[in-house]
Amino acid sequence: MDPISLNRMGSDHKDYTKQRVQVKNPYLATMEEDILYHLSLSTKTHNLPEMFGDVKFVCVGGSSNRMKDFAQFIHQELELPGNPEEVTDICEATDRYCMYKVGPVLSISHGMGVPSISIMLHELIKLLHHAQCCGVVLFRLGTSGGLGLAPGTVVVTDKAVDSSFLPQFEQMVLGKVITRSTELDQGVANELLQCSSELQHIPTVIANTMCTDDFYEGQGRLDGALCSFSHEDKLEYLRKAYEAGVRNIEMESSVFAAMCSVCGLKGAVVCVALLNRFEGDQITASHDVLAEYQQRPQVLVSHFIKKRLGHVA
Amino acid sequence: MDPISLNRMGSDHKDYTKQRVQVKNPYLATMEEDILYHLSLSTKTHNLPEMFGDVKFVCVGGSSNRMKDFAQFIHQELELPGNPEEVTDICEATDRYCMYKVGPVLSISHGMGVPSISIMLHELIKLLHHAQCCGVVLFRLGTSGGLGLAPGTVVVTDKAVDSSFLPQFEQMVLGKVITRSTELDQGVANELLQCSSELQHIPTVIANTMCTDDFYEGQGRLDGALCSFSHEDKLEYLRKAYEAGVRNIEMESSVFAAMCSVCGLKGAVVCVALLNRFEGDQITASHDVLAEYQQRPQVLVSHFIKKRLGHVA
Repeated sequence: MDPISLNRMGSDHKDYTKQRVQVKNPYLATMEEDILYHLSLSTKTHNLPEMFGDVKFVCVGGSSNRMKDFAQFIHQELELPGNPEEVTDICEATDRYCMYKVGPVLSISHGMGVPSISIMLHELIKLLHHAQCCGVVLFRLGTSGGLGLAPGTVVVTDKAVDSSFLPQFEQMVLGKVITRSTELDQGVANELLQCSSELQHIPTVIANTMCTDDFYEGQGRLDGALCSFSHEDKLEYLRKAYEAGVRNIEMESSVFAAMCSVCGLKGAVVCVALLNRFEGDQITASHDVLAEYQQRPQVLVSHFIKKRLGHVA
Repeated sequence: MDPISLNRMGSDHKDYTKQRVQVKNPYLATMEEDILYHLSLSTKTHNLPEMFGDVKFVCVGGSSNRMKDFAQFIHQELELPGNPEEVTDICEATDRYCMYKVGPVLSISHGMGVPSISIMLHELIKLLHHAQCCGVVLFRLGTSGGLGLAPGTVVVTDKAVDSSFLPQFEQMVLGKVITRSTELDQGVANELLQCSSELQHIPTVIANTMCTDDFYEGQGRLDGALCSFSHEDKLEYLRKAYEAGVRNIEMESSVFAAMCSVCGLKGAVVCVALLNRFEGDQITASHDVLAEYQQRPQVLVSHFIKKRLGHVA
């Protein structure tokens, strides 16, 4: 089955559960050792199938504290034995990323921006491949700026679009541009929307997400160290994005979607909007309000995982 | 004085020491409060001139542990009162970046990749502006892949070039590309080279640095989850880079150089090469060897700072 049809096959996941995680690199099979440098793991020094073979859900997010919180939260939700406070960072030998394993769930941080998540995804996909994992679903749990949404709304990404609102990711390879599709799995997105309807207080929409390489000028903010455009220019750009179906803006979804698509992995991007960009640029909500918003993608994805594992009807 | 001539004025730094850090955004002056969200600081809740007004040197690097190590190291080197072990993270309310202040030196982490360092630089430059700092010199202390260099060689960047070997950075602004120069201060680079000649065991060259948005395909690595080119294609691309004067490859220098240039800040990029990419892709050196390599940019920049402060002849 080719990656595209696999990616779009929706909720028919019988075949998918048997599907090994694929890499698209003929050289890997010829390597005696594979050092996953930024995860501080290696095929020679770690028994990856034993450590990770049972992983079915991988949740990634920018902040290391948030991904530790999620590991502790899903530990409680799945009612696993042991103390949730005692989850340990598998990548503690490096400070590039942190990683926690809780039953069939991996929780990993990826830092900010496409390059940072891209390094982690290369090494994660290799890890899942070496560990012979099957039927893995990936989630990005993040924060974002909203467009015309009430702060606190969760956006499940339909398509990740670039700054021209096109559903593509441009990858430089040896100095040349390769364009990749950024469509995400529709079945998983619809299942997440269904989950939100079963929960209280998690307002959720499926919409397009714009992915930028910059938080300030690239997202039309007037409050960076550099700004060469007017308030009117900004609003016109955000209005065009809105008309193209964009409801939130973040900085990692495009390469996440592209790499999932190329490797035939089902993936979903689930980001809460911290503010409405039509009303301002600065994130002014209180710490407590922001903390509650940031739990919403976690609660939603946790419900999805519990349903898949048969913990809830 | 315009930013370009300021940037190229070399060692004539009498005028520069009186030069306030500039932002290029007319909107900032109209804002009642400026929340530096990813640093967890604000003009309303923090007295930035009191906290940061005496900063003269800002050192940034990807890893938070390494920038804490550098803060402790420079504390010892400058023979400041107090226990170097007790440096405290000014940004401890967030895990996006860490920041330490040691006398006139700020040490800040920036994560990996252009988007991650760009968010930090926007907020750092605003911080230095709000704090009314003068004559600040910025250093990026990093790691990189070398081209035709012995591992452990330090590269002080002449020009930061893109994957087509051009000394430019393409910034998306409201969906359109703006091209910015990535030339760095020649005076500071030459002073750093002079410093290396005064130290033992810090082999140093001035050369071009290629900045990419990806560690694997974008740098021609054969060991990522995705690879669609041959070993020969890779070597041909690296040879072309070498012919264009590139001696190392990393992931942050272009936006660092571009933002320094636009804001009239003197900046230098000082990265050690962890391996020779003509010989391989994986980073196989031992932990101890890598740790020693990573100290070299720190030792070099520390010597520069001590000389500027009159601690050494």
